[in-house]
Amino acid sequence: MLKDGLVEHFRVADGADFRLKRFDPADTGGLDLDKDEARELLQSGVKRLRNLQERLFAEKRWSVLIVLQAIDTAGKDGTIEHVMSGVNPQGCEVTSFKAPSSLELRHDFLWRTTCALPERGEIGIFNRSYYEEVLVVRVHEELLAKQGLAPELIGKDIWRERFESIRDFEKHLARNGTVILKFFLNLSKEEQRRRFLARIDEPDKNWKFEPGDLAERKHWDAYQRFYEDAIANTATEHAPWHVVPADNKWFTRLLVAATIVDRLEQLDPQFPAVDAEARKALTKARKELLAEDDKRKD
Amino acid sequence: MLKDGLVEHFRVADGADFRLKRFDPADTGGLDLDKDEARELLQSGVKRLRNLQERLFAEKRWSVLIVLQAIDTAGKDGTIEHVMSGVNPQGCEVTSFKAPSSLELRHDFLWRTTCALPERGEIGIFNRSYYEEVLVVRVHEELLAKQGLAPELIGKDIWRERFESIRDFEKHLARNGTVILKFFLNLSKEEQRRRFLARIDEPDKNWKFEPGDLAERKHWDAYQRFYEDAIANTATEHAPWHVVPADNKWFTRLLVAATIVDRLEQLDPQFPAVDAEARKALTKARKELLAEDDKRKD
Repeated sequence: MLKDGLVEHFRVADGADFRLKRFDPADTGGLDLDKDEARELLQSGVKRLRNLQERLFAEKRWSVLIVLQAIDTAGKDGTIEHVMSGVNPQGCEVTSFKAPSSLELRHDFLWRTTCALPERGEIGIFNRSYYEEVLVVRVHEELLAKQGLAPELIGKDIWRERFESIRDFEKHLARNGTVILKFFLNLSKEEQRRRFLARIDEPDKNWKFEPGDLAERKHWDAYQRFYEDAIANTATEHAPWHVVPADNKWFTRLLVAATIVDRLEQLDPQFPAVDAEARKALTKARKELLAEDDKRKD
Repeated sequence: MLKDGLVEHFRVADGADFRLKRFDPADTGGLDLDKDEARELLQSGVKRLRNLQERLFAEKRWSVLIVLQAIDTAGKDGTIEHVMSGVNPQGCEVTSFKAPSSLELRHDFLWRTTCALPERGEIGIFNRSYYEEVLVVRVHEELLAKQGLAPELIGKDIWRERFESIRDFEKHLARNGTVILKFFLNLSKEEQRRRFLARIDEPDKNWKFEPGDLAERKHWDAYQRFYEDAIANTATEHAPWHVVPADNKWFTRLLVAATIVDRLEQLDPQFPAVDAEARKALTKARKELLAEDDKRKD
């Protein structure tokens, strides 16, 4: 739905040598669209997505896992709303992962997200995910101490081990029929400042601002560093990251939609074919229904 | 609870060179006990297990996963009953995995067991497990076709890939605080014949016999071969297998109990220590309670 190569430009399928600073949050991939043009293009993408999802749902062969990660105000919620609203909610489930519950903390760090994985035929959207375990938990190491792990399990290798767990887990999922698409919405610090100000200045947006938000903003550099490290350690051919410029909402949404559409078109799900026997049953059922009509005429 | 080295004798913590035929199903580890002696020894083991479990539950630091695998009639159910009956069921959950449901089949093959994993502080017993995915599914490859996987995901490497998934999964669990103990109850073909006959001849046991049981028995050699391959590929230091002789029920139960007790004693869970502040609160509470007594006397 976007010009050839544009989606690939933001894809990281091999984390070696990944550098976040090579990606510009204000990039619009050479596109210069006004609001109406962007909306129209997005709508055509959403329509294609709806058709693809219907076939995915009917075929029941692949599940699609979409992971959305970003710093506050980068537009995760808005992206979900605008890209996925056209899709049949039967067959598409969004799960938001907030601070883990006490039940969740009593399990390994991949447990809660695993239980929420999409079935074959469905699209599962993780609004935040197990990646928080190597992001917010890494910025605030005191959270790690609250996870109930024995102290001898918290060694200097713990982040390397968590990356390995995640890579192994995603490889297992991919081999067993889950298509994984990971998105990092890449916002600039200046644009976050503008969006926070808007949340404070516009009464209808006040509810989106939380007192702790500015405290998190103070950890900006740490988050950038750990996002870079997470992407470098977990970007693979079967579970690629997409570093989506987030300073322009219209482009964020277009690029996310185009990435999903491209991948599903490549997957090319098909309505299940009807075999000879089922065809016979259909023909028989058709005759019966038509016969009802004849009887009524009698 | 058994003599030194006996538990280790049946442990496989490194699968390289594993050969099932080196393990005799009729072995009793040099023990020659009558029924009463065996029962008494088992009772003392169960008592130790109960005490250890109370501390495990209070400490809430480790979860314990016990995997029980065996051919029909080898004594999984009886072992669970006799070894675990003394344990507080709050903190100990048995999950039996039968043929997967349609919901379960719409997920990857590790999903249903993952959702049933024990919390920190608890003992989870899997009566059959994800190992069925490389045992019964391998004996009856037609089951694989029913798992909804795209044909291109079912290659000649699928069993190797499943072993890798299982190894990665168990490594992740171990690193995150799950103690894993896997048991294969090793029955001889002749003893299975005797037990099936007893199920047919004794009216109270008839309910245990299913018509399909003899059809499975015809696959005896395949099952032995695939059990051997599964153990060879997944026995590790952090998730060892225990090949438990199963021709004598009293020894099966003793050895399983001893293996769990040994491992928990090595883990040595502790009641949470009370710090100075909590100690002060206890002292204050004690005074308040005693003061009630003084008032009553007034």
